[in-house]
Amino acid sequence: MFVILFYDFGEKRVGKALKICRKYLTWVQNSVFEGEITQANLKKLKHELSSKMDKEEDSLIIYTFANMKYSTREVIGLEKNPQSIFL
Amino acid sequence: MFVILFYDFGEKRVGKALKICRKYLTWVQNSVFEGEITQANLKKLKHELSSKMDKEEDSLIIYTFANMKYSTREVIGLEKNPQSIFL
Repeated sequence: MFVILFYDFGEKRVGKALKICRKYLTWVQNSVFEGEITQANLKKLKHELSSKMDKEEDSLIIYTFANMKYSTREVIGLEKNPQSIFL
Repeated sequence: MFVILFYDFGEKRVGKALKICRKYLTWVQNSVFEGEITQANLKKLKHELSSKMDKEEDSLIIYTFANMKYSTREVIGLEKNPQSIFL
């Protein structure tokens, strides 16, 4: 399946979220990730993120698609370089 | 068509982005919007956002789909209330 994931974690936890997401998905920009993922890995990813998040403060949105159906992804404005992210 | 939009605008411009997006799409959470939109309105939306953004600092990601194909959207953690957003 194909996944688009968006997280909004507090400053102290955002580095951990980034690190977890990068194991399973491709970084798009800011706190947005996407990619093909198996059901088993999606379960693992959600479990890892849930264990690190503060459920009173942080949020996580996951769109799942049967397959990669989006016709376009357009980025307007700043193109951020994944290499520039400081973990 | 169906659109998922994420923006990351600087503090001074984020309120404007929110206001523009709400005219055309449904607020999901944080800086994520989604909804059915016509090609003409999507063009208007992109034009309005582009005119307000600082292209050196801000970014905007738009996924467009032929129709609403995502099988699930899952929100984990904090459920933010759109009414609580201060414009």
